[in-house]
Amino acid sequence: MTDSAQQFRLDPRLDADCHTLGRLDCSLLLLMDNVLAPWFILVPEVGGVVEFHELDADVQQRLLGEINLLSRFVKDHFTVDKINVAAIGNMVRQLHVHVVGRSEGDWCWPGVVWGAEKGRGYTEAEVGDILRALENQLGSVFVLAREFEAGA
Amino acid sequence: MTDSAQQFRLDPRLDADCHTLGRLDCSLLLLMDNVLAPWFILVPEVGGVVEFHELDADVQQRLLGEINLLSRFVKDHFTVDKINVAAIGNMVRQLHVHVVGRSEGDWCWPGVVWGAEKGRGYTEAEVGDILRALENQLGSVFVLAREFEAGA
Repeated sequence: MTDSAQQFRLDPRLDADCHTLGRLDCSLLLLMDNVLAPWFILVPEVGGVVEFHELDADVQQRLLGEINLLSRFVKDHFTVDKINVAAIGNMVRQLHVHVVGRSEGDWCWPGVVWGAEKGRGYTEAEVGDILRALENQLGSVFVLAREFEAGA
Repeated sequence: MTDSAQQFRLDPRLDADCHTLGRLDCSLLLLMDNVLAPWFILVPEVGGVVEFHELDADVQQRLLGEINLLSRFVKDHFTVDKINVAAIGNMVRQLHVHVVGRSEGDWCWPGVVWGAEKGRGYTEAEVGDILRALENQLGSVFVLAREFEAGA
């Protein structure tokens, strides 16, 4: 484990707003707790990085792979018309990348999800469905949070 | 010139809303005509691509390099607190990546620029200043639009 991984700790606001689903190659995979859109967030497990361009080249490459993988998953598993990918971080400085499936006519279309009102949260069963779909499509690339949290 | 480059044509809405500054490695470089933020847009010159993850791997790598270069330029040349990087495309489907310098306390902080009201456009002199700064920092990677437009 590198120094930067040791220093990593998920921002409390992301933790409060999202379900931590698991881990991909270099990032935690979160689900925004808002059923109105399939809204995922990747948080590279490196400490102290704020801007996308500040990532080490190898971590940036791994994150890029995750963005591609997750975008395909959202397109394949949900009925969406557009993927929105963004690293914003005006509210939470810890580097995190949104991958959001959008549908024409969804609650804030064609506006963006950031700043739009939130819907209800997911039920446990709904989160379970998404976890199974991730396991089916991503295989061993995806490690369930309950597996590494049990060992923490 | 590849087939996809031949098919490429800048979306009319992007063309209307922005100044075309020039070209980087694989993308047109635009400046949103809104003085309230240093708001650049990269448009890879490939035809028919809508989603970031649909880009060929080599073009994606080149675009990634441009995002890094442009993000550093915005940090170095303007007084900004945060870079917002995003591929949204709900309004304009042609793939384009926003690289926006944000300052705490700017007109829509901490909200996002998409959907916020616009400020005045740039004067010719102000665009000229930005072009010179790009030439100084990026050197031969940056090709001025007036050079390739003269030959078109």
